[in-house]
Amino acid sequence: MDGRPIGIFDSGAGGLTVLHECIVTMPHEDFVYLGDGARCPYGPRPAGEIQRFALEVASHLERGGVKLIVAACNSATAAALPLLQEKLAVPVVGVLTPEAHAAVQATRNRRIGVLATEATVESGRYANAVQTLDAGAAVVSVACPKLVPMIESGTVDGALHAAVREYAAPLKEVAVDTVILGCTHYPLIRPVFERVFGRRTTLIFSAEETAREVAETLERKGIENERSREGATTFFTTGSPEEFRALGERFLQLPIGSVERVGIRELELEAA
Amino acid sequence: MDGRPIGIFDSGAGGLTVLHECIVTMPHEDFVYLGDGARCPYGPRPAGEIQRFALEVASHLERGGVKLIVAACNSATAAALPLLQEKLAVPVVGVLTPEAHAAVQATRNRRIGVLATEATVESGRYANAVQTLDAGAAVVSVACPKLVPMIESGTVDGALHAAVREYAAPLKEVAVDTVILGCTHYPLIRPVFERVFGRRTTLIFSAEETAREVAETLERKGIENERSREGATTFFTTGSPEEFRALGERFLQLPIGSVERVGIRELELEAA
Repeated sequence: MDGRPIGIFDSGAGGLTVLHECIVTMPHEDFVYLGDGARCPYGPRPAGEIQRFALEVASHLERGGVKLIVAACNSATAAALPLLQEKLAVPVVGVLTPEAHAAVQATRNRRIGVLATEATVESGRYANAVQTLDAGAAVVSVACPKLVPMIESGTVDGALHAAVREYAAPLKEVAVDTVILGCTHYPLIRPVFERVFGRRTTLIFSAEETAREVAETLERKGIENERSREGATTFFTTGSPEEFRALGERFLQLPIGSVERVGIRELELEAA
Repeated sequence: MDGRPIGIFDSGAGGLTVLHECIVTMPHEDFVYLGDGARCPYGPRPAGEIQRFALEVASHLERGGVKLIVAACNSATAAALPLLQEKLAVPVVGVLTPEAHAAVQATRNRRIGVLATEATVESGRYANAVQTLDAGAAVVSVACPKLVPMIESGTVDGALHAAVREYAAPLKEVAVDTVILGCTHYPLIRPVFERVFGRRTTLIFSAEETAREVAETLERKGIENERSREGATTFFTTGSPEEFRALGERFLQLPIGSVERVGIRELELEAA
């Protein structure tokens, strides 16, 4: 048993979908969520910069005494996961691999689609991870640059539906039976994806698969918290606590009490 | 639901430990086991030859109408898994990746030991698979050339204990807390490993982890058999059915009824 909290970070509030799935799966665990709002988004930045930011943020969580860190962000995982694992003493779980594994397990026709941000699709990490597990699987990846801004704007309208249909078209054309939704924002428009792909396509959400990976890891290591208790979450952001709270409450559908601010300067000084 | 059997192959009888774990995990499934006894062992052969043999054997299972194939053999997985996955329409699950994943989940100090045959250790596949999942994990691998012949001879004596202690020593020296037993023969001397490593070391057996991977895969694909039924296993060998039955009954502690012979020539002709 281990009473320490689990640390989760993202460049912004997208990782809150991962936090949500973690709370559903492990209601007895405590969580510390740190959003790097001041430097959000990570996606368009050079890899070296993402690595530096991710290492500052993850190191801050480690110094705070977490037992495991979740990189709840595709850009941070793609650019920085191996570096974080080399530099930190606590285990670091990223997105990407859990979804790829789930997709290989789930597909029947071995045709897998990936919808993700441009940076994630360009990194080729999903296709690599899938083909490491099944060299015969066909992977079709489509970059969806319009979706994150539309989701953050909060308007679910005809334009959003049209965009999802447009991105889904190349996957439907080659009859994939499993689709990895490889961005932490996408669970927020789950009903749209469900309608566009229909019942016969298996949708794999990174948030769910990552939560499952974290739960299995705690269990295998024997470092779960006591199961009878109810966990709590503490929120930190490098950006505006008000903005984080507003976006966060919409993402989680959960009243977020206090959000504490962590200065970028503080993170940089700690790292120096 | 899918009533087709699961195909399992190995160069000999070692894969029967995988079959055993599969039966324990999925008692409602049917299995077809094919041992390539006439060409056993695969380990010392060149990779190209292992690939040809594995493809012949796995293709024979596929033609027999299985819904999934398990390469229950480290040598075949290391040399031929990607090729099998490219060439066959049915999904192929190998050993190696499931154990590496389990070890990364289980270790607390991120120091992982591997005990396996010379060919498996030389291939570096376990170290690669572990470090793909945790770039900061330290892996110490030790080749154990004496163990398979000793286990097949069936004598558990002082020499076997001394050999296990000798192979374990370098792992204990660097205080690994998790050991991958990366050969399908090793579950047969589980008590010896347990005594040598003690309660505080987590032992990861490839047979168990592979069975878990197969069960998850069937569930995710929705191709499990009906849960209320009791499954059956059919045995085939390219070698001597009598030898297979003798070795097999010792490996499985289960009376093996009939073992049917498949000719090498038949496999080669099918493949041509």
